[in-house]
Amino acid sequence: MNRKIIGKTLGFLLLLECVFLFPSAFIAILDHQRELLGAFVASMAVAAGLGLSLSFLCRKAEGRYYAREGFLIVGLGWLVLSAVGALPFWISGEIPHYVDALFEVISGFTTTGASILTSVEDMSRALLFWRSFTHWLGGMGILVFLLAVVPMGKGGYSVHLLRAESPGPSVDKLVPKTRQSATILYSIYIALTVLCVLFLLAGGMPLFDSLCTAFGTAGTGGFGIKNSSMAAYSPYLQTVCTVFMALFGVNFTVYFLLLLGKIKQALLGEELRLYLGIMLGSMALITWNILPLYGGSVHAALHDAAFSVSSVMTTTGFATADFNLWPQLSRTILVILMVVGACAGSTGGGIKCSRVLLLLRSLRTRMRQMLHPRSVSLVRLEGRTVGEETVQGVYTYMTAYCAIAILSILLLSLDNLSLETNFTAVMACLNNIGPGLDLVGPTGNYAHFSDLSKLVLMLNMLLGRLEIFPLLIMLSPHTWRRAA
Amino acid sequence: MNRKIIGKTLGFLLLLECVFLFPSAFIAILDHQRELLGAFVASMAVAAGLGLSLSFLCRKAEGRYYAREGFLIVGLGWLVLSAVGALPFWISGEIPHYVDALFEVISGFTTTGASILTSVEDMSRALLFWRSFTHWLGGMGILVFLLAVVPMGKGGYSVHLLRAESPGPSVDKLVPKTRQSATILYSIYIALTVLCVLFLLAGGMPLFDSLCTAFGTAGTGGFGIKNSSMAAYSPYLQTVCTVFMALFGVNFTVYFLLLLGKIKQALLGEELRLYLGIMLGSMALITWNILPLYGGSVHAALHDAAFSVSSVMTTTGFATADFNLWPQLSRTILVILMVVGACAGSTGGGIKCSRVLLLLRSLRTRMRQMLHPRSVSLVRLEGRTVGEETVQGVYTYMTAYCAIAILSILLLSLDNLSLETNFTAVMACLNNIGPGLDLVGPTGNYAHFSDLSKLVLMLNMLLGRLEIFPLLIMLSPHTWRRAA
Repeated sequence: MNRKIIGKTLGFLLLLECVFLFPSAFIAILDHQRELLGAFVASMAVAAGLGLSLSFLCRKAEGRYYAREGFLIVGLGWLVLSAVGALPFWISGEIPHYVDALFEVISGFTTTGASILTSVEDMSRALLFWRSFTHWLGGMGILVFLLAVVPMGKGGYSVHLLRAESPGPSVDKLVPKTRQSATILYSIYIALTVLCVLFLLAGGMPLFDSLCTAFGTAGTGGFGIKNSSMAAYSPYLQTVCTVFMALFGVNFTVYFLLLLGKIKQALLGEELRLYLGIMLGSMALITWNILPLYGGSVHAALHDAAFSVSSVMTTTGFATADFNLWPQLSRTILVILMVVGACAGSTGGGIKCSRVLLLLRSLRTRMRQMLHPRSVSLVRLEGRTVGEETVQGVYTYMTAYCAIAILSILLLSLDNLSLETNFTAVMACLNNIGPGLDLVGPTGNYAHFSDLSKLVLMLNMLLGRLEIFPLLIMLSPHTWRRAA
Repeated sequence: MNRKIIGKTLGFLLLLECVFLFPSAFIAILDHQRELLGAFVASMAVAAGLGLSLSFLCRKAEGRYYAREGFLIVGLGWLVLSAVGALPFWISGEIPHYVDALFEVISGFTTTGASILTSVEDMSRALLFWRSFTHWLGGMGILVFLLAVVPMGKGGYSVHLLRAESPGPSVDKLVPKTRQSATILYSIYIALTVLCVLFLLAGGMPLFDSLCTAFGTAGTGGFGIKNSSMAAYSPYLQTVCTVFMALFGVNFTVYFLLLLGKIKQALLGEELRLYLGIMLGSMALITWNILPLYGGSVHAALHDAAFSVSSVMTTTGFATADFNLWPQLSRTILVILMVVGACAGSTGGGIKCSRVLLLLRSLRTRMRQMLHPRSVSLVRLEGRTVGEETVQGVYTYMTAYCAIAILSILLLSLDNLSLETNFTAVMACLNNIGPGLDLVGPTGNYAHFSDLSKLVLMLNMLLGRLEIFPLLIMLSPHTWRRAA
């Protein structure tokens, strides 16, 4: 194992985090909050100090790494970033308990949006900004950012980093060079975010609110800066969010193809069609189901149904209505959407539409084979044959996903809250959504849980965002035993 | 497709069902219930009439069938048996609604034990006997019985029937000849059932109660003949049930090996160890968790915990205590046990311990391969390498299982009952347990559901008992399109 390259990359990451803390510190200066500024400066000092030490200690690193190092850098990197990122909340005293601060920042980086705060409006603007900014950073991935700005050695091995951090059953580079791929991804990401901010500003939303909301939307995170999430804003602003959440849940390859002028190829993809099909179908069903609650007004029902579906399916977690109070059919559809999630290669979480598609295709293929044992059937997706390895990977992922979910629900049940709370809390964290049902519904929060449960849920968020294996491999003694 | 052999086998099955109705009719005679006897005679006439017609029409059947015919015979056979088996309840008027009668008898044959009756004690003894007897027939399988008593053509193709009806990831014959295997299975089954009856009689339970209880225990069904299930009986009788439920959840191969004197091989199997490990661990955890409810009496808490765990894990569904009122940890453990289920090759349902073992082994193997891409790792179970096909089969099964569960919960949610009711009702039916939580808890029943939901749940019971594919293949248009 190449320990030096791991240390060097972690050092770079910490230096990057120090830089990312600047805007929030600047807001503290604007708001004349001296003590808060002190908290930010202290946190930046820790990040810079650790970062510089690691970079110095591992300065002789050779630039070769493989799948294992890729997984480890991503797993360790996210842990270190979170541990340091929680400091401003904790040092400032606005979240006095370190476990809570860690929960909040992991929820931010993983774009979950689950909060232990009972009133976000009591928090200072600088910390609210940092909280929302973590969504934006975590959405496309911090290592992907690093790949885009720092030359990471020769030989093209850096693709292992991209693979380990990006979501989806089979991650491919957009262009042959990893660095160029990372740059293209971030360029599209920044462009769409700027567009979102402009649309929000056009609706009369203040600049600070627009930035924070756009960060939460772009990263499909869902941290709000109002206690009522998005319910306090105008219908126009809510609709802007509905549309942009859906856009950020699309595989970014689609936008790349659009930029290349390959419009047909971009819009006729099977995953995109499934994603839009499920989304529009769910919106229609829920509108019909909640119509009586809105006095028969299709427009009002559709508005809230569309927002909730877009928010839950892209695993953002903003809310305009308390869907915990909706009829069972709507609630059940939303829970299913939580699990399905957005497209691979987007900033959204969940199992991803392409995995669902692969599972169903593979099931059909196997059933045919049962009837005609001698026939050879292959699984196809997006017009290409899918390798056995990819299908196997999806199955392995699903097995680990179920095992983690079951174990987590069991551990949470020690708190003696309802089964619905525990089940939807785990689903909301593992799929990086934020709100669940019952106590963790859109108007609830995660403050009810014990520290043990909070740790379990933090692990769920990280496992969900990094798609399980980087963390699982990091935690496996097998990985470290054979270290050389 | 060999339609004639399918028709001929279905004919035999119906004739067999006519014979199986005799004991219940005899009880109606003993109880001097003329009208009820009429209902039984009418039902037997329908079974015999249909059976003879089919046998006559398909008398020229040639004895060859393959996997497809095996699946179809089992799928269609169970549907036909249920449709006719529901007649006594319906004709007698004791269950006036045919859908309810069908629900009850499918719940019987599939050894689920879910009931739409609000008071079983209002039902006549003859019908209670038939209700419990269906558990016993469905437990080991009716086609397995047919294989044991009727010579089914030459060439050894009848193994496809055994495979399609018996549970487990890879069904193997005990001895080279299918008929002999079926006979051995039923001999062990009958011997254990007789032993159970004797133990119950020794505890002072009346003969009728002993027979019905033994049928429910042996088939791991769970229909009781008292409104309070097993709570009304003495602790000794409850303990007899605890032990025998656990025994019937064991792979019958273990008993066969014991009979052959291969004691070490029988008792050191990996599935058996996992089954007993989970069972004893759950008993200990739940005893600790419910101790305060029992005023600190370890003996009383252990008694109810052991009974509930044995009942739920073997998917029987008898109850001595209302575990719906237990703390969340205990309830969550029980829900997980519902899904895990008993051993392959037993009369119990659920996913089966061997599948859980295979999934975990396969996960470990894949993770090793992720770290060392060039290494070759194989999945091993019970000391032997498991073929890729078997592992694939388990994954396919799990995918179909999840898809069916999600779709069913969605359809049930139209009734607007709680998510916990819907979720545990589907789990309880798909895994052939009987009671779930909330409205369908041990003191509840399935009368709350609409006819649509009852149909969905019936389908779940059949899919669970027949392990999905016989029915799925029967319902697939693909199967019939290429029929020749």
